[in-house]
Amino acid sequence: MSLANLRTHYTTQIDPGKIGDDKVALAGWVHEVRDLGGICFVVLRDRQGRAQVTLVKKKIDRELFNFARKLIRESVISVRGIIKPEEKAPNGYELIPDEIELLNEAESPLPLDTTGKVDAELDTRLDSRFIDLRRSRTNAIFRIRHEVLHAVRNYLAKEGFLETSSPKVVATATEGGTALFPITYFDREAFLNQSPQLFKQILMSGGMDRVFEIGPIFRAEEHDTRRHLNEATSIDIEASFVDHFDVMEILENMVEYVYTRVIENVPDALEVLGIELKVPKTPFLKLTYQEAIEIVNSHGEEELKWGDDLSTLSEHTIGEHVFQETGEEHYFIIDWPTEIKPFYAMPYEEKPEFSKSFDMMHRTMELSSGAQRIHFPEMLKNRIADQGLDPEGFDFYLRAFSYGMPPHSGWGLGCERFVMTMLGVENIRDVVLFPRDRRRLSP
Amino acid sequence: MSLANLRTHYTTQIDPGKIGDDKVALAGWVHEVRDLGGICFVVLRDRQGRAQVTLVKKKIDRELFNFARKLIRESVISVRGIIKPEEKAPNGYELIPDEIELLNEAESPLPLDTTGKVDAELDTRLDSRFIDLRRSRTNAIFRIRHEVLHAVRNYLAKEGFLETSSPKVVATATEGGTALFPITYFDREAFLNQSPQLFKQILMSGGMDRVFEIGPIFRAEEHDTRRHLNEATSIDIEASFVDHFDVMEILENMVEYVYTRVIENVPDALEVLGIELKVPKTPFLKLTYQEAIEIVNSHGEEELKWGDDLSTLSEHTIGEHVFQETGEEHYFIIDWPTEIKPFYAMPYEEKPEFSKSFDMMHRTMELSSGAQRIHFPEMLKNRIADQGLDPEGFDFYLRAFSYGMPPHSGWGLGCERFVMTMLGVENIRDVVLFPRDRRRLSP
Repeated sequence: MSLANLRTHYTTQIDPGKIGDDKVALAGWVHEVRDLGGICFVVLRDRQGRAQVTLVKKKIDRELFNFARKLIRESVISVRGIIKPEEKAPNGYELIPDEIELLNEAESPLPLDTTGKVDAELDTRLDSRFIDLRRSRTNAIFRIRHEVLHAVRNYLAKEGFLETSSPKVVATATEGGTALFPITYFDREAFLNQSPQLFKQILMSGGMDRVFEIGPIFRAEEHDTRRHLNEATSIDIEASFVDHFDVMEILENMVEYVYTRVIENVPDALEVLGIELKVPKTPFLKLTYQEAIEIVNSHGEEELKWGDDLSTLSEHTIGEHVFQETGEEHYFIIDWPTEIKPFYAMPYEEKPEFSKSFDMMHRTMELSSGAQRIHFPEMLKNRIADQGLDPEGFDFYLRAFSYGMPPHSGWGLGCERFVMTMLGVENIRDVVLFPRDRRRLSP
Repeated sequence: MSLANLRTHYTTQIDPGKIGDDKVALAGWVHEVRDLGGICFVVLRDRQGRAQVTLVKKKIDRELFNFARKLIRESVISVRGIIKPEEKAPNGYELIPDEIELLNEAESPLPLDTTGKVDAELDTRLDSRFIDLRRSRTNAIFRIRHEVLHAVRNYLAKEGFLETSSPKVVATATEGGTALFPITYFDREAFLNQSPQLFKQILMSGGMDRVFEIGPIFRAEEHDTRRHLNEATSIDIEASFVDHFDVMEILENMVEYVYTRVIENVPDALEVLGIELKVPKTPFLKLTYQEAIEIVNSHGEEELKWGDDLSTLSEHTIGEHVFQETGEEHYFIIDWPTEIKPFYAMPYEEKPEFSKSFDMMHRTMELSSGAQRIHFPEMLKNRIADQGLDPEGFDFYLRAFSYGMPPHSGWGLGCERFVMTMLGVENIRDVVLFPRDRRRLSP
């Protein structure tokens, strides 16, 4: 079998008014066969959309007609023929076939419905992700995810950030506080890294100035929620000679840029999901931590005191409050207590109990955390010890601070949360091709 | 300390003919201090280049002059002042300072020389990567690596490939034949994935049509060579309705595109490395496996018979032969014996002992492997069993073939090898920020 010319166009690439009598070939899946006796319609589906293949019994080779009628749903075919304009068909045309090649026949029944008519449980869909991806909603989510990543990278490259990779296999627990997955690394114990944090900071000492990394992070936490995974994708940046306000500006402008690109470049995918995306207005509102807990306390459902972390419930209270006041879904919470932020967050000089740190919030959840970092080696060593960690385990990191570490700031943004909040998706597993959680390790 | 305006320009962004009397601020590292008594030069280095800060004793504040003379090498400074054209200085200007701010002082002596005057062992450089990155050669390599990744992604996106991520934590050894790192995943045993292969194929059944992934792969092999690592970055694509020749064309065109972009966008980094990069000419030469072993045998150093894999020595023999004949460094070896390729490689219909597979070679080493894949479930199951693997362990993968898997092809390209052959770098550890091998797990 030669694969040459199995496909000349995607279904959405044909202009019925212009194509004339040129032969075209479409390739994809048998989405539906409607056999009306004298006429048979085969709906072919590819990544971009659908096309109607029309066979009129009287006008077409008998063998071809009978072949088409018996096609099994979700089999893979290539259809060659000519295009006729047809307003009622998808994309405004029908394909009159000369030839239908069956490339691979599907078994039946299918483990999952692909038309979207029958709802399926998330677990069933994830077990048969290969079928789930053929549903137009799932397909749309992952086309948008591609666009998000493409826009993020283009934005950051344009702003002078260099793409880097940090190791995923590391010798020591990096930040403390998070459970890690142990690995047997030859004859030693090692761990899967929870974050590129310490490595991207080392690169600042290396003079790389502005770096980003988009890659997997691993956390061995036993949570079972709709917004946590044990393997996730983190978008991380670090930049020298700038403070936390500068990197907040980079972050909000990036969010604005990405939303704009998604609206421009994949409007059809948004339409499938029934979403009218609105570009967030920059600059985002900045609440101090103090203001944030006051909002929570004024709503009376919880009573927070200074130094408490925000619960999921309080994040919701604040998010709704901000949305009611401003009509916007994104905002920052800044100036967090130093003691509840990681050891590398820089305290304010005049009030060291506050740190130069921030979270970027969506109405429904936290999306990103960042800060200006401590760049003075002694201060950093003390902060590590203060948090009950052993500075010796951080030797590979601390050395980078003693020979010329510039002031620097950065953030990490959860890629999945960014996509799920953009699309209003309820469960994080819906925006990951093959999610990993406490129970799921396959496919 | 406010970080506002620590830097207005990179050293290479100033046009001395145009800037006039505008105040500028540069920020970076003290590369060198040359104190000639009546005049003192401080060379400031940032990511992009160097600038000369000139202090004439008679014309400048005495305190500032003395401060500058005593700056310790590799300390971090911000210098504010005005620009004077000066042909003999780097980038054609000198900076006459009003103010020098010491942002972080370096300890001395340094663990490594940064001027490039003193050669250091690779291990010493990797132990102090944060200093090594300040050397112009190392800096140039990672600026080029960024450009390579950026060009790869732009090329593939332009060709309709969607970016995807596969899980790094997996339940079963995927391809067989390679040692894997075991992980304790909660109460279960799991492994670090050696390749996105099986997952990207599943996405073809999902109708994603064309996908790519750039991410880490993990192999627990105990090799200790200059071209293997235990954690590496793989550039992977998979495409539906195309054969191995189609994806070879995508690969060679991508290589051509990336070389072109590197030459256009980072000529200064190439100059630092002393490289005159030549864009490989497409299409690349295609040798059959049969022709390849005949070349080896005709050179008399080894005697290969059909079914033997190519040794490192034979790869060199063929690479030199091709280079002598064509003047080109890249070529394909196609039509490999089915038995020495992975189970998923499609055999030719008429001569099933040959497979529709290829390797893309550089004169000095293998860069990429690819093939048309088997898309028929029964054939695939038999091939898995033939190779002594248990089809049951592949159930999550095989299911995707029974309900409409299109014909498809793809390849994986080693990112590090691609960069090292482009730049003539001898050791793969030189193109990875924090390499992982049998002995090295830190930094």
